[in-house]
Amino acid sequence: MTTTGKQIFTTLDKGGALTVEVAETEFPDPTGNQVLVKMEAAPINPSDLALLFGPADLDNAEYSDGKIVAQMAEPFLSGAKGRHGQRLPVGNEGAGTVVAAGDGEAAQALMGQRVACVPGHAFSQYAIAEAAMCLPLGDHSAEDGASAFVNPMTALGFVENAKMEGQKAIVHAAAASNLGQMLNRICQEDDIALVNIVRKQEQVDLLKNLGAKHVVNSSDDNFMDQLRGAIDATDAYYGFDPIGGGKTIDTIFKAMEQVAVGKMSEYSRYGSNQQKKMYIYGRLDLGPTILTPSYGFGWTLSGWLLTPFLQQAGQETAGRMRKRVLDNLTTTFASHYKKRVNLEEMLTKDAATNYRAMKTGEKYLVTPWG
Amino acid sequence: MTTTGKQIFTTLDKGGALTVEVAETEFPDPTGNQVLVKMEAAPINPSDLALLFGPADLDNAEYSDGKIVAQMAEPFLSGAKGRHGQRLPVGNEGAGTVVAAGDGEAAQALMGQRVACVPGHAFSQYAIAEAAMCLPLGDHSAEDGASAFVNPMTALGFVENAKMEGQKAIVHAAAASNLGQMLNRICQEDDIALVNIVRKQEQVDLLKNLGAKHVVNSSDDNFMDQLRGAIDATDAYYGFDPIGGGKTIDTIFKAMEQVAVGKMSEYSRYGSNQQKKMYIYGRLDLGPTILTPSYGFGWTLSGWLLTPFLQQAGQETAGRMRKRVLDNLTTTFASHYKKRVNLEEMLTKDAATNYRAMKTGEKYLVTPWG
Repeated sequence: MTTTGKQIFTTLDKGGALTVEVAETEFPDPTGNQVLVKMEAAPINPSDLALLFGPADLDNAEYSDGKIVAQMAEPFLSGAKGRHGQRLPVGNEGAGTVVAAGDGEAAQALMGQRVACVPGHAFSQYAIAEAAMCLPLGDHSAEDGASAFVNPMTALGFVENAKMEGQKAIVHAAAASNLGQMLNRICQEDDIALVNIVRKQEQVDLLKNLGAKHVVNSSDDNFMDQLRGAIDATDAYYGFDPIGGGKTIDTIFKAMEQVAVGKMSEYSRYGSNQQKKMYIYGRLDLGPTILTPSYGFGWTLSGWLLTPFLQQAGQETAGRMRKRVLDNLTTTFASHYKKRVNLEEMLTKDAATNYRAMKTGEKYLVTPWG
Repeated sequence: MTTTGKQIFTTLDKGGALTVEVAETEFPDPTGNQVLVKMEAAPINPSDLALLFGPADLDNAEYSDGKIVAQMAEPFLSGAKGRHGQRLPVGNEGAGTVVAAGDGEAAQALMGQRVACVPGHAFSQYAIAEAAMCLPLGDHSAEDGASAFVNPMTALGFVENAKMEGQKAIVHAAAASNLGQMLNRICQEDDIALVNIVRKQEQVDLLKNLGAKHVVNSSDDNFMDQLRGAIDATDAYYGFDPIGGGKTIDTIFKAMEQVAVGKMSEYSRYGSNQQKKMYIYGRLDLGPTILTPSYGFGWTLSGWLLTPFLQQAGQETAGRMRKRVLDNLTTTFASHYKKRVNLEEMLTKDAATNYRAMKTGEKYLVTPWG
């Protein structure tokens, strides 16, 4: 007995046409330690948008009921060769109620419970999820639990990673995001200094109202002074950037090196001995990352993804992180949404162009039965 | 009783005039574990050139006896702010005979011996060096020992670093250099697979004649095919690049990722799980490093310098490396020179423009008493 329901798929053909559509789908019965979750809420995260639309042209797309057909230009079309012709489900995470379970003990234990899950096809009325990755939500609503994984575990992952590497301060770019606000709360709780880089005065105000001590505005004329001052005050030679493209990381490395060189007593052709480390965890800017030769050889830049980090951190750490998220779901790790859309509403021009802009405080929540 | 001798200095004033000149200098008596070395030979390494001339305009410089005055353009002038107005000695390494020693036991033990040393002011008739960093050369000539430190320890450092990180294969860019040839010999001795990237057919021939198995030519139309083939054959997801600027590293990461993705059974929006790591150890190209979003998040790029590496590796490893260099000074770690110049000859237009071009097989040796 299979279950049917509506689900969103994205397909990029090799000619550059990207089709995103709602389709009636059959879901298999869960086996082993799988569960079938009737999905109630799923957030649209930046990481979902990369797969859902990528850099396709949504302004000039064709919109019909539950369907978008847009064009993907080069070099992105060739860059996404691996997905050409594949009909892909979307939606990293969400929450709902377990309506069927495999024979496995872990799966059976979740039967009837509301859980947060990470199925990878959360923009759907049903989803098959691994019991081991489900977080029982107790009395919390699906909306409270919908974003319990990606942003909370990523923000917490940054702090865990910093601690593992002996760091007591973090620089964060695009820091007014939902994730950035969580990171701000975690750093306050854990006494980690945080240098927040934003690009608008209202984002400065927002973070300051949330108790952030160091917020620097890249649109200000004296931005470099602000950044150097904050690095000097915190000893933050370590950070995370979701922008990726352009000169953000270059600017941060430069400021770090200038602070370090300012503390040296004599000139060295090789720059300071201060090790500087940045991670790219997103690609809000798909342009190339630009690194100028302005900060010697004492730096490391690395990609950062949650799943490999959790594997490296080990089960005990991951378990401790999940417990902390659940214990603080409506406080430290709360997400806020601008709007709720069902699957068809999600694919209207107004909605798609709005949530794709990823503006601060404008996150969408998909409620597939709404 | 001080010693006097000729020495080379480089001074960049804040207006952009770079003066490089031979000057009569007083050398203090060595104290403690210092020794005074009468220098007999010192190589001009790429790392010396960065300090000696940087990107100054040598074609339109003024040349007089033992003196060059050249202009340094922006953005390099501002980029070198830390050295403005400072009269800096040059020359990382060289070899000569210890003619005076401090009271320290290590210094006294070297009295009268020929040593390789790393004084940082080797383009000089005398140099003050730390006994602990001197390598007694026994019966070797000063010319044999002049390049015993920078290139040998760097090439050996790459292999030691690869082993520490569990790697069995290395990609090396600009691989036909003196250092690249050493690396080729070390990798053969240590059974580490090496992918040599060069840009000319004669460099392919040169390395193949030295027994290199994988040499790929970036000037060939099918370069990417060659590079992917070599990575696939060796599992080299780890490497070193002395170029720094431009797209070399981007190209290497792309090829690595394409090989890794080719082995995956299904598409992942995040790219392969294959970790890729590259080190920049030089800046032959002072342009920005360009990293495109073409290889997911499983990559790390880091600066690499010998001194911090040796500190991290520890005394035992450093000692073992030094012994290996000394034991194989005229074989594995032999350097070859195109020309010998004294201090004045080093600052003629012909010589300066020639060795600054850093062509394969055209290394200069400074013989300050010649």
